[in-house]
Amino acid sequence: MNAKQSAGEKAVEYIGDGMTLGLGTGSTVYYTIIKVAELIKSGMNLKCISTSSSTTRLAQSLNISLLTINDVDKIDLTIDGADEVDKKLNGIKGGGGALLFEKIVAKNSELNIWVVDSSKVVKQLGKFPLPVEVIPLASKKLIEDFVSKGYNPKLRQDNEVVYVTDSGNYIIDLHIGSIDKPEEFETSLKLISGVVDSGLFINVCDRVIIGTESGARVIDK
Amino acid sequence: MNAKQSAGEKAVEYIGDGMTLGLGTGSTVYYTIIKVAELIKSGMNLKCISTSSSTTRLAQSLNISLLTINDVDKIDLTIDGADEVDKKLNGIKGGGGALLFEKIVAKNSELNIWVVDSSKVVKQLGKFPLPVEVIPLASKKLIEDFVSKGYNPKLRQDNEVVYVTDSGNYIIDLHIGSIDKPEEFETSLKLISGVVDSGLFINVCDRVIIGTESGARVIDK
Repeated sequence: MNAKQSAGEKAVEYIGDGMTLGLGTGSTVYYTIIKVAELIKSGMNLKCISTSSSTTRLAQSLNISLLTINDVDKIDLTIDGADEVDKKLNGIKGGGGALLFEKIVAKNSELNIWVVDSSKVVKQLGKFPLPVEVIPLASKKLIEDFVSKGYNPKLRQDNEVVYVTDSGNYIIDLHIGSIDKPEEFETSLKLISGVVDSGLFINVCDRVIIGTESGARVIDK
Repeated sequence: MNAKQSAGEKAVEYIGDGMTLGLGTGSTVYYTIIKVAELIKSGMNLKCISTSSSTTRLAQSLNISLLTINDVDKIDLTIDGADEVDKKLNGIKGGGGALLFEKIVAKNSELNIWVVDSSKVVKQLGKFPLPVEVIPLASKKLIEDFVSKGYNPKLRQDNEVVYVTDSGNYIIDLHIGSIDKPEEFETSLKLISGVVDSGLFINVCDRVIIGTESGARVIDK
């Protein structure tokens, strides 16, 4: 079993009958979603919430019916991936572009589990480019501002076309190298007009499952 | 001359040849924009930036050609209205729904002038409902959160249809009554995931022009 599959499938052990479940986005939680489809098929009663258009497509292809966050009173558990996670279980997400919906769902979840392979576990956040979701109208001025601050910003593109998020926004990836104080940095970014949210997830994750080829390790906060 | 016209036209005195000009939104700055069109027709060289789809329509009807904020290096002066302004020249904007683009343009302007009639001048901000622009997906949870905090939120509607901003977001109007610490309150709102921006404009306005039927009064910060 590969490391991603190992982590993604391990997370399923925390799913209980009757739960409302947030389904994350990415190549590791993919394996979780495959298993969730099997649980539903075998009779488990689950309400599922998607965090992105790509997860919506995957869930629909597996006959998982979806609700939106506006349809439910609360979300019991969200299982998602991460691009980086540190020892405090803070992380960077949004490499796949779904950071905003992922963050909204996560912040409205009772419990958050991240599934990763060991390459995502880092001493310090920031080697992975930090995605910042921004209002298109503000993007040029924000890039100028980020350049002046030394954040090495790059407007995300897909085959030379500007990448557009599920909310119609742009993403600026900050190639910082290392982020000394992630919590303060998240706050400073979020306060800028034109910034919708950042890929820094601080005090969100409760449990990380780290997959390896020989099994999965669980770390609780 | 009515009070709005008095204020709106007075602001034109601060416009100089060669300026890049931000054009605000609303019934007072309407009179400014009419005069801007006359200045351009009479040969003044101005680059104009719109803050909303309604101002874009007005400008186009007056043959004012528009650039976007991404087309210019800097904005010299933005003239805009306000729904409330206090003695520190902090204010509430967004009754017309254009708060986000107005704020982005304002924060990228060297100088900001607000044009208001005297009914907009208040001792304390908050009697005017504070608009908060939010991601639609998060709107229901945000309303629940705002209710629990005693903010008396109302999702903005237009003829019983949810109002959608120029960025595709919703607006939640907070009927608070009075806001004790506007700066801290703006920060607390902006840090919430799903909140794109608030109608609190703190340390943005440099000069207010207050119109009356007998003339206009100028207050500098």
